[in-house]
Amino acid sequence: MSTLNKTLQAIRPIDPQWIESAQRRQLELTKPPGSLGRLEEIANRCCAIQETLQPTTARPRIVLFAADHGVCAEGVSAYPQEVTAQMVLNFLRGGAAINAFARAGEIELQVVDVGVAVPPPVSNDLPKARDFLDRRVRSGTRNFCVEGAMTEAEMLAALDAGIELARAAALDGCDLLGFGEMGIGNTTSASAIAAALSGKPVDAVVGAGAGADDACMMRKRSAIERALVLHSASLSDPLGILRCVGGLEIAAMCGFCFGAAAHRVPVVTDGFIATAAAALAVRVAPVASGYLFASHRSSEPGHAHFLAMIDQQPLLDLGMRLGEGTGAALAMKLIQSSVAAFTGMATFASAAVSNKGASNK
Amino acid sequence: MSTLNKTLQAIRPIDPQWIESAQRRQLELTKPPGSLGRLEEIANRCCAIQETLQPTTARPRIVLFAADHGVCAEGVSAYPQEVTAQMVLNFLRGGAAINAFARAGEIELQVVDVGVAVPPPVSNDLPKARDFLDRRVRSGTRNFCVEGAMTEAEMLAALDAGIELARAAALDGCDLLGFGEMGIGNTTSASAIAAALSGKPVDAVVGAGAGADDACMMRKRSAIERALVLHSASLSDPLGILRCVGGLEIAAMCGFCFGAAAHRVPVVTDGFIATAAAALAVRVAPVASGYLFASHRSSEPGHAHFLAMIDQQPLLDLGMRLGEGTGAALAMKLIQSSVAAFTGMATFASAAVSNKGASNK
Repeated sequence: MSTLNKTLQAIRPIDPQWIESAQRRQLELTKPPGSLGRLEEIANRCCAIQETLQPTTARPRIVLFAADHGVCAEGVSAYPQEVTAQMVLNFLRGGAAINAFARAGEIELQVVDVGVAVPPPVSNDLPKARDFLDRRVRSGTRNFCVEGAMTEAEMLAALDAGIELARAAALDGCDLLGFGEMGIGNTTSASAIAAALSGKPVDAVVGAGAGADDACMMRKRSAIERALVLHSASLSDPLGILRCVGGLEIAAMCGFCFGAAAHRVPVVTDGFIATAAAALAVRVAPVASGYLFASHRSSEPGHAHFLAMIDQQPLLDLGMRLGEGTGAALAMKLIQSSVAAFTGMATFASAAVSNKGASNK
Repeated sequence: MSTLNKTLQAIRPIDPQWIESAQRRQLELTKPPGSLGRLEEIANRCCAIQETLQPTTARPRIVLFAADHGVCAEGVSAYPQEVTAQMVLNFLRGGAAINAFARAGEIELQVVDVGVAVPPPVSNDLPKARDFLDRRVRSGTRNFCVEGAMTEAEMLAALDAGIELARAAALDGCDLLGFGEMGIGNTTSASAIAAALSGKPVDAVVGAGAGADDACMMRKRSAIERALVLHSASLSDPLGILRCVGGLEIAAMCGFCFGAAAHRVPVVTDGFIATAAAALAVRVAPVASGYLFASHRSSEPGHAHFLAMIDQQPLLDLGMRLGEGTGAALAMKLIQSSVAAFTGMATFASAAVSNKGASNK
C-alpha cells in the first residue's frame, strides 16, 4: 500500500468521550465554568487528540515548505519568482518574520525545499543550515494555464514529503505542530483551489496576495479562470484539484496534515495558502479536521471559505497576510497556554477555594 | 505636590514622529508592506513609547491587585466573598489560571492585597510568598448602595499603590507591563463605572460576571441603579465615580496605568474590570491611552464601552471572562512577537531579497 493510503487509513476520528472527560476536569479547576472561553475547547481537544488528561505541548515545531509556481509566467505576483529562493536563504540566516516569531516563541523551525525553481545555494555556513531539508520533487510546478501543475507521481511525492516530515516530527517527540509556506505566485494557486473546492466565483476568492496591483489582479483572475476551464474534467475530487492547480508546497502541507492526524499530534494551520492545503486534506479525510487548529483569519478574501471547509474558527484576527507559518507561531502560544492552564491549575478541592453557590451573599 | 499629581504631570503624549520612523523601518523589513497587520502597529507604538527603534519587551510583568467589595452584601455575586482571599492564596501557591499562563509565557507575577476583606494568611512557606505585596488600604470597600465605596484619602492611597508598583516595575527594568484583578463582586463595581462614565442604561452594561443567575443579576442591576441615584452628585468626574462606586483594586489599577504611562512602559489591559480602571485613567489623562494595549474582548457586555473609551482595539476575542490578568498574559506574547519581528528581521537590502516591483513576471 502507498504511504498516502497507509497514512489515510491510520487517521481515526477523535473520541468525544475524551472531550467529555476533559470538560468534567475543566469544571473542577479554580475558575468560573467556561471562563477561559475558547481556550477550554482547545485544551479539551488536545486531550482527545493525545488521548490523555495530561496533554503536553512542550515541543512545538513549525515546518515551512517552499516551492515555485509555473503560473508566475502569467504575471500574477507583485514579486519576482527568485524571491522564493532568496527567502529560503533568509529563513536559513534567521532574518525572516517567522524566524523572529520562532525565536520569541521557542518554536523549532524546519525549512523544506519541495520544489524551488532554482535550488537555493544552501551553504553549511548559514546559521540555520541544519534546519534545511532538501525534498525537491521538481523545479517548480508547470504553468497550470497550459497543463496540469503536477503529474500524479509528482503530487504523490510532494504529499509523501509532508507525511514523512510529520512522522519525523512525531518520532522526535514534537507534541504540537504547525506549518507554513513560501512560494511566489502561490496565492494564485490557492485561489484556484478555493474556486474549485467551493464553486464560488473567482472574484470572491482572489485577493491582492503579497500586494498585487490592479493589472496584476486582472492577470491573476484571468489565469485562474482559464485554468478552471482547462482542467474542468479533473476538478471533481480534491486530489484532482491539487494535481491540476495546486503547488508542490501545498501538496506537502496537505500530506503534513495527514501525517499529523495519523500520529495524533495537534496541528496548526497558517494563512490562506496553508489553509488551502488543510481544506484539501479535510476534503480527502474529513475526520482529520479534529486534529487541526486554525491559527488566524488572514486578510485574503478566500481564507474564510477554507476556514469553513476545515470547520475551525481562527484564534486570531490581526489583519496578517504573510504566510511562512507566522500565524501558526502566534497561535501555538495560545494553545500552549490553554494546555498549561488545564494541566497546571489547582482544583477547588485541592486549593480549598469555595465553589459557586457555596454561599450567595 | 501629591504623588498622583506628580505622576499625571509626567505623562507626555507619545510622539507621532516615532511612529513614522518605525513605519519607515517596517517597509525595509523582508515582508510585503503591512503583511504583519496589527502587529506592525503594535511594534511601531512600542517604538514611540520607548522612544527608540530598538524597543525591548524582554522583561514582562503582570501585577494582580486583589480587594473586596462592600456591595457583596447586596447578594450580587455567584461566589462567596471569602473566595477573594482564597484565590490570593491560590495565586501564591501557583494554582490559578494566571499562574499557568505566567509560567507558560515566562512572565513575572506580583500579587498585591489592596484591601481583601479578611487578610489572607500568607505564610512564607507558600511557593510564591515572595511575589506577594501587602498594600492594604482598608478591609474591602464600603457598600456603595449605602455610602461611598471609599473616602477620598482611601482612593488616593489605592491609586498611589498602583503608581508605586508601576514605578517599581520600571525601576526593575520591566519593559512590558500588564495588570489584572481578583475581587468577588467587582463586576458590579465595574458595571456601575460603565453606566456612570458612558451614560448607558444599566441593562446595557451588566453581565453575568463569574456566573450570576437571574435572581443574582436582578440584585446586581438593582444595586447599581440605587447607587447611581445615591451618588448622582459625585458622578460627573472620573475620580468621583471611582471613589463612590469603584473598588480599591480598580483604583490601584488606574494608578498603575498612570505610573506605566509616566515611566513610558507599554501596559496591557485585561478584562472588564481592568479595562474599567484603564477607562477611568484615560478619562483623567487622555494621552495615557497611547501607552495602553487592549489585550482581549471579554464576554461581559459592558467591556466594549470601556474599550471604546480607551480608544484601543483588543488583540484577542476568545470568549474569556476570568480576569486575574489572564488576557493580558496572552496578549503580551503577541506584543513580544511584534517587537521581535521589528527588531530581529533582516532588511531587503541586507538579505539581498528582491523587493516588490523589482520585476513583474
